[in-house]
Amino acid sequence: MSFQVLEKDKSSKARLGRLITAHGTVNTPVFMDVGTLGTVKALEPRDLVETRAQVVLGNTYHLMLRPGAEVLELAGGLHKFMRWNGPILTDSGGFQVFSLAKMRKITEEGCRFNSHIDGHEFFLGPKESMAMQRVIGSDIAMVFDECLPYPCDYARAAKSVEQTLRWAKVSKDQPHADGQMVFGIVQGGIYDDLRRHCAEELVKMDFDGYAIGGVSVGEPEECMYQAVDASIPYLPEEKPRYVMGLGVMHQMAECVARGVDMFDCVLPTRIARHGTAITRHGNVAIKAAKWIRDQGPVEEGCDCYCCRNFSRSYIRHLLACNEILGLRLLTIHNVYALNRFMEDMRAAIAAGNFMEFKETIKKETKGK
Amino acid sequence: MSFQVLEKDKSSKARLGRLITAHGTVNTPVFMDVGTLGTVKALEPRDLVETRAQVVLGNTYHLMLRPGAEVLELAGGLHKFMRWNGPILTDSGGFQVFSLAKMRKITEEGCRFNSHIDGHEFFLGPKESMAMQRVIGSDIAMVFDECLPYPCDYARAAKSVEQTLRWAKVSKDQPHADGQMVFGIVQGGIYDDLRRHCAEELVKMDFDGYAIGGVSVGEPEECMYQAVDASIPYLPEEKPRYVMGLGVMHQMAECVARGVDMFDCVLPTRIARHGTAITRHGNVAIKAAKWIRDQGPVEEGCDCYCCRNFSRSYIRHLLACNEILGLRLLTIHNVYALNRFMEDMRAAIAAGNFMEFKETIKKETKGK
Repeated sequence: MSFQVLEKDKSSKARLGRLITAHGTVNTPVFMDVGTLGTVKALEPRDLVETRAQVVLGNTYHLMLRPGAEVLELAGGLHKFMRWNGPILTDSGGFQVFSLAKMRKITEEGCRFNSHIDGHEFFLGPKESMAMQRVIGSDIAMVFDECLPYPCDYARAAKSVEQTLRWAKVSKDQPHADGQMVFGIVQGGIYDDLRRHCAEELVKMDFDGYAIGGVSVGEPEECMYQAVDASIPYLPEEKPRYVMGLGVMHQMAECVARGVDMFDCVLPTRIARHGTAITRHGNVAIKAAKWIRDQGPVEEGCDCYCCRNFSRSYIRHLLACNEILGLRLLTIHNVYALNRFMEDMRAAIAAGNFMEFKETIKKETKGK
Repeated sequence: MSFQVLEKDKSSKARLGRLITAHGTVNTPVFMDVGTLGTVKALEPRDLVETRAQVVLGNTYHLMLRPGAEVLELAGGLHKFMRWNGPILTDSGGFQVFSLAKMRKITEEGCRFNSHIDGHEFFLGPKESMAMQRVIGSDIAMVFDECLPYPCDYARAAKSVEQTLRWAKVSKDQPHADGQMVFGIVQGGIYDDLRRHCAEELVKMDFDGYAIGGVSVGEPEECMYQAVDASIPYLPEEKPRYVMGLGVMHQMAECVARGVDMFDCVLPTRIARHGTAITRHGNVAIKAAKWIRDQGPVEEGCDCYCCRNFSRSYIRHLLACNEILGLRLLTIHNVYALNRFMEDMRAAIAAGNFMEFKETIKKETKGK
């Protein structure tokens, strides 16, 4: 369980790294594919291998509700339950508990809430979250935190950061699964001094890696980079850095330029289910009538299973008929598209032309 | 394009055959997997290969409505559109036009109806059906017929059989795709003399094979076998016989014992999407709460991708969460289960113990 920086870009803070987990090595910068309920939606483990996925992200909140700790414990953890032998990262449930659940009461110990599924009452705090992540057996566990909404005034943000820091300490002190790394989460909203304070205090606790949370929550794009810029200088060079909830190509490239190593986002799988393909030239609504007769692949030059075999005309037909295969094939394409994008970004860093790569992707995809 | 009877069972009319089509050889008795709209629901072509599917059935009515003849023609036919290089059989649309569409007017030329999707008006008769099947490029085309409901009085059935025979003649006389076989369809409801008359008249037209239609439309099981028994003696030994719309294990075995070679049914894929697995010991509702903790496979001893890898507990969890992967994995299992069942039935015929095989499957699955 370690992280090594292999190479640094000369014109930016971008770096190539290698994160060694109990279930294999991850090449960074990496995009992690979200598998909320123990499946990257519509895909099976062999599809993840084929689409060159490196890490699956599981959601502690969702897995706590369904199937629950008892079932996961019986199965021997999430790897065995879902048959994915690669690395798994779990979030702490903090984000979902504050955004999805019907909150009942927040105390120093955590949150009492009602499940968004059936109203059943649960309690989740740093101890419960770490216990659940231990049962899940993830390779990387995240501390329980409060994810601030945007906008949020300074006083509330400052108070929340202190809560997040206390919960980080409790999370760190819990027993963890064998070989499980634990990452801290820098919060602080759009306030540079709070980001710095949070980062510095977390570093004192000595985590295996550091996430920057509370970005991509509706703020302008510039605020996102500001939050990253305000946090990174206070995080150790030799530890991985992870921006949570981000999966847009040019935004990931901007963050990599700032020294970020890891990302995750529901975007590629979610928009696939709505009929949209991610490409190097922006998003494409494949279900649009304009593709009815189009014999080309979803993305020219892409060698994923979907693009190697099927026409836009066929995929559009499947989507128009609500055929499961349509959204499955687009999911395969989108997951592959982002994983391949990260491979190309790593190659660009290695080849010394990362800044050019970043500008090209911005020009080709931003706003498209 | 030919059919050969390779071996006959000594204690029944069961037989092993080989149907050679423009897209490969089919071992009979065969179950054909229904791919209504150009996909066996939730599966891609490589899944069909893996689940040992031999023939995909396409629906002329559905494909005429979506994507329509123009798109299929542009793609170069259904094989290329959906990327399935094996044999395809298409029904004629007769069944759907009478059961799904809002009928406007039936004439000697066919039926004017409104699409069940958007109300758009279409016309389908023997000429239009054969033209559409030519565009689809199926290896086996079915004549346009009227599928009688159950119950149906003698006078109506007799009149309908004459219509079906006239449409069969027109269908036969249309131009067909290269290498396309055409099958006639025996109708006649539960009336033995009408079945015989229909079979005899069709045989005079000399089709490449003969289907027995209008079974499995709600009649008691015994009436189904009666319809088969009333038709088979008047169909030539050297041509394939196909009972349409049947996919229940013991019923297929009963029909094979009566000399039937081919079957199709939406059942395995449809019940998979409703959370039910087909097994050699009857159907199993995998989404039932009793499987929450069960670490066994969907079916003990099954070596499909689903059963080799996942527990009932995991599949039940996916189904409970409405995860696409759950119904996809059950679809893989169910398609494999029926295709393997037919393989074992063929092996039993070859080994001379077909009747024993038939009794065992009836005892183990009927009503379960």
